[in-house]
Amino acid sequence: MHFFSDNAASVCPEVMAALDRVNSADISYDADAASQSMDAAFSELFETDVTVLWVTTGTAANGLALAALCPPHGAIICHRDAHVQNDECGAPELYTHGAKLLLVDGPGGKFTPNALNGCLGAVRNDVHRAQPHAISITNATEYGCVYTPAEVAALGAIAHERGLGFHMDGARFANAVAHLGCAPAELTWKAGVDILSFGFVKNGGMSAEALVFFRPDLVEASRYRRKRAGHLLSKGRYSAAQILAMLKDDLWLRHARAANEGAQHIAQAAGQRLVHPVEANEVFVKLSAEETASLRAQGFGFYDWGEGQARFVISYDQSHSDIEALSAALDELK
Amino acid sequence: MHFFSDNAASVCPEVMAALDRVNSADISYDADAASQSMDAAFSELFETDVTVLWVTTGTAANGLALAALCPPHGAIICHRDAHVQNDECGAPELYTHGAKLLLVDGPGGKFTPNALNGCLGAVRNDVHRAQPHAISITNATEYGCVYTPAEVAALGAIAHERGLGFHMDGARFANAVAHLGCAPAELTWKAGVDILSFGFVKNGGMSAEALVFFRPDLVEASRYRRKRAGHLLSKGRYSAAQILAMLKDDLWLRHARAANEGAQHIAQAAGQRLVHPVEANEVFVKLSAEETASLRAQGFGFYDWGEGQARFVISYDQSHSDIEALSAALDELK
Amino acid sequence: MHFFSDNAASVCPEVMAALDRVNSADISYDADAASQSMDAAFSELFETDVTVLWVTTGTAANGLALAALCPPHGAIICHRDAHVQNDECGAPELYTHGAKLLLVDGPGGKFTPNALNGCLGAVRNDVHRAQPHAISITNATEYGCVYTPAEVAALGAIAHERGLGFHMDGARFANAVAHLGCAPAELTWKAGVDILSFGFVKNGGMSAEALVFFRPDLVEASRYRRKRAGHLLSKGRYSAAQILAMLKDDLWLRHARAANEGAQHIAQAAGQRLVHPVEANEVFVKLSAEETASLRAQGFGFYDWGEGQARFVISYDQSHSDIEALSAALDELK
Amino acid sequence: MHFFSDNAASVCPEVMAALDRVNSADISYDADAASQSMDAAFSELFETDVTVLWVTTGTAANGLALAALCPPHGAIICHRDAHVQNDECGAPELYTHGAKLLLVDGPGGKFTPNALNGCLGAVRNDVHRAQPHAISITNATEYGCVYTPAEVAALGAIAHERGLGFHMDGARFANAVAHLGCAPAELTWKAGVDILSFGFVKNGGMSAEALVFFRPDLVEASRYRRKRAGHLLSKGRYSAAQILAMLKDDLWLRHARAANEGAQHIAQAAGQRLVHPVEANEVFVKLSAEETASLRAQGFGFYDWGEGQARFVISYDQSHSDIEALSAALDELK
Repeated sequence: MHFFSDNAASVCPEVMAALDRVNSADISYDADAASQSMDAAFSELFETDVTVLWVTTGTAANGLALAALCPPHGAIICHRDAHVQNDECGAPELYTHGAKLLLVDGPGGKFTPNALNGCLGAVRNDVHRAQPHAISITNATEYGCVYTPAEVAALGAIAHERGLGFHMDGARFANAVAHLGCAPAELTWKAGVDILSFGFVKNGGMSAEALVFFRPDLVEASRYRRKRAGHLLSKGRYSAAQILAMLKDDLWLRHARAANEGAQHIAQAAGQRLVHPVEANEVFVKLSAEETASLRAQGFGFYDWGEGQARFVISYDQSHSDIEALSAALDELK
Repeated sequence: MHFFSDNAASVCPEVMAALDRVNSADISYDADAASQSMDAAFSELFETDVTVLWVTTGTAANGLALAALCPPHGAIICHRDAHVQNDECGAPELYTHGAKLLLVDGPGGKFTPNALNGCLGAVRNDVHRAQPHAISITNATEYGCVYTPAEVAALGAIAHERGLGFHMDGARFANAVAHLGCAPAELTWKAGVDILSFGFVKNGGMSAEALVFFRPDLVEASRYRRKRAGHLLSKGRYSAAQILAMLKDDLWLRHARAANEGAQHIAQAAGQRLVHPVEANEVFVKLSAEETASLRAQGFGFYDWGEGQARFVISYDQSHSDIEALSAALDELK
Repeated sequence: MHFFSDNAASVCPEVMAALDRVNSADISYDADAASQSMDAAFSELFETDVTVLWVTTGTAANGLALAALCPPHGAIICHRDAHVQNDECGAPELYTHGAKLLLVDGPGGKFTPNALNGCLGAVRNDVHRAQPHAISITNATEYGCVYTPAEVAALGAIAHERGLGFHMDGARFANAVAHLGCAPAELTWKAGVDILSFGFVKNGGMSAEALVFFRPDLVEASRYRRKRAGHLLSKGRYSAAQILAMLKDDLWLRHARAANEGAQHIAQAAGQRLVHPVEANEVFVKLSAEETASLRAQGFGFYDWGEGQARFVISYDQSHSDIEALSAALDELK
Repeated sequence: MHFFSDNAASVCPEVMAALDRVNSADISYDADAASQSMDAAFSELFETDVTVLWVTTGTAANGLALAALCPPHGAIICHRDAHVQNDECGAPELYTHGAKLLLVDGPGGKFTPNALNGCLGAVRNDVHRAQPHAISITNATEYGCVYTPAEVAALGAIAHERGLGFHMDGARFANAVAHLGCAPAELTWKAGVDILSFGFVKNGGMSAEALVFFRPDLVEASRYRRKRAGHLLSKGRYSAAQILAMLKDDLWLRHARAANEGAQHIAQAAGQRLVHPVEANEVFVKLSAEETASLRAQGFGFYDWGEGQARFVISYDQSHSDIEALSAALDELK
């Protein structure tokens, strides 16, 4: 009964089968048919022409995105609890060659236009300060909250008015879309997003994420950066195949819906204990040390998340019995 | 009848099966059992205690190795035709933060102690010159030639006398060992090698290479660098599984032997046309434009390699009929 | 009546004379007699063996210091308002190749052992987080406050217990020492400081700062970094001469005392308006928009420092009449 | 009788006087009148609108120029013996964040359009190779040879046809112009040069070089890079004053002429011993070990320059007696 993280889940059968399907000698890097068909597949999904690069991790995707949007002497505005700030060991700094992350606060891992403007206003406009060149938001956030298309668009409007690039870390983009029931286009380019890190690994994939460019001018240099970072796999077809398998028949969305539903079930049991609204597949719960110990004794695996809080992540393939058991156990604690 | 590159070959059944075997929810990153058993497996193979990190590409492995051995203000000595110099779009410069590559010449992609000493002697010992901190050799080389243990040891002796780190790019290490019939230990740490990029992708793997540290002091920082470069996969067990499957029962060596034997067969047919001695799984052949066209018309796929030369790479699973056909076709040209 | 910044003051006659004294053909870089005598001069001042490099700016000095103490994948703890964070356009990130700055709060630009421990405790000890490798404090601070030797030592004790490097940005180190009346040794290496950026430009110099190493192991690589950053001037004797002239007969200390005294005079006039205790040569004053306008109309030059506040910096050579005039004008406002 | 290097000469009286002239409290960084007048002064000299930044070293100037012209994943083509390759400890790699230098050969430190095209043609146009983004030439070269306007223009034409930036390292630009007797415009922007590192330190200055931008689009980011590298001096007026003093009444040109004439005098004495044509202020001479020893015994200071060769650099203020003495001594050797 593991609720540690969706990033440790199994790989779904459709992805495993896709690996088999491309398993014959082919052209290397991304010149194979699967890699070459990615642009078309994502363009259809996003209802506009996009270019897509596969990479193996969300950290690499984010690093490449930020390097495309911010020069080494610039700054990127993100949430204080963003993955790019806290969980990538400085990957944005490596990929951008030392850009600064400027941190903004806000509940649930989200920040508002007001907070963004406050941050922007605090940066003296002279050469002594790293000037903001990009903003990066996470959707769904690190706390399982979801920006709506309107909320994204409000940030996007500021970004574009100020000439800032706009990146969305969508390691759990699928969960956000599943929650909102909106078109992917609404949540991204129509709301001003320039580049999306579209996650598949947490949602049933093995080792492939998609970096989706809504601005063609940002693509070319990114190809070189991907190679230079060691992320251009020679057998790229196995990466493309994973992603294409998850796009097929909206598997990515079905997986995310399942995970979100599991989270809702558990959220209801958690009731007043919830730290954040549950909108994606993560449930943050207030628990005393005794309660934590009790749950662990019952066989539930999960991480503490600061003082008196715990995080439960529901995977796309989390069993109903796991979900029921955790719900019952939380209910019991009341 | 593709002889373009071994990096486009299929993935062997043993590796595919290994992916299935680890396909259940587990601990993320490299805390799973497969990842955790890699040190032991490689320590046995190398007859000494080693630490091993998986990464997804040889470029990443090389970048991490060089960053472990050379500071940003230092220099790395390598062959003029080395992969790190010509085929990684500056990955060593990214990973090391701008170290310089100093280039040495020599036939077959190999260089000698004399050439190395010449290069070292040409670097004025003052702060105006990036001082050499490491040397990097490729074995088997980019031209399919193989350094013997004695040749490696001669370079290693200079490296260690001068306090330089010693890296071996072993994208085709298996082919080198298969050719030499020596113990892996003889060709590496016993000859002074500090870090080995041990390739599996070209030899039947899908997306996993092993970075083998013979010096424990270099490991810790490398773990952070791997994460920071976006190469710490969350489902790392699928990487470890690939590598372990290839270590099992010396599959890596059997594959390399098969590829080498294919190359020998073709080399005999090529005869006087050979540009380099054929010691691994690559055959470089002098061909006129007409001969090149003729071979292509017969269905052989391969790359031109400079004026009047072509490269044929034999994969671990190259069919006997492909090999026979190419041999016959070359024979025909005589 | 300029109180904008001490960094715009004139160069003192002793420094100008020193430039003349070394003005004949000599050996280049830092092989001249003046440069070569710096270690001895500072060793005497600090009562221990130190090595000193001249550079042209405090930004370069800080960058070199931090690069000596923190690897690219590490983090440096500093005050939220530190110069290295806010006023160097990412120089620490350039020099360290992308280390992260972790920000700590505290009144007057100072932070306490408690705050430091809080920051350290918040960093999960795994490869996903940039781990702290160094702390950097400014003394006197950006707000004209001064850490005492005991306060420095308390931070130094934590630094050394945790294996962190300890840097002091002493752009106004002279003002701190002048305020405390302590030995320079007490405020630095005896309190655990590893490297000091010792400022001279704000205190009467033209273009030379001293980077003082209390740890010999950190020097060698710093020489290469200085060259690589373009800070090894070929006519280095003019840099060394400036610094030596200011060390002579404690000119640096006399200058700082004069500036501090001017600040005290103004502080008394400012009374309740003071934002921070005045311990060095800066006076931060609460002023309404009307008061600000009135002072400017009277010919006083100074910067606003956030909403309803202004900063007055007193230079080493600020005229008594300027100081009297400002004091009177502030008195008038009451 | 020092002929070691022009970079160790004294500072000329006009520059010393200029330092005195700006020696009063002023506005900091480059907002002072002297700094602000540089664009106009250089625009007049170059007969076109230029923007100019002062820095303290040629290494910094070159680093900033190359960073303006080449991204981290790109390559810069320069001569094998260029200062940027051999004498800056990797400063171009620091400033560009790891761009590669591709080396071209040619006599006298110069390379031809043919050589340039050969280098360009050898770079496979794919993401595995760092693609050329800029070329950098030195004029006068490290061997005291001078590119003519036509020679520069021939390289410039290729650069612009290929979309490459074009940088001229003019540490001894004055000597080149003095030799050619051409307008500075002819040798730079009219020949396709985008950025010029215009040296003053070797020609009578103390610590100020001018980075001249002929392309306005490259300036803005360079201002941030200069600050970030610690090269934005707070008392910038002393840098600007040095440069302006040397522009006044063509002092820079008169100095260079004097140095060049000294070199010509010595060159005539050297006769058949000359290694390179003497066109600027450096004389490379074939000397046996005995001859070298003999000259040193006579009191001449100079560097060996490879096996059996020596370099003599003539400073702008080299005394006639020094020049006569060296000429006589060389004559004597015949």
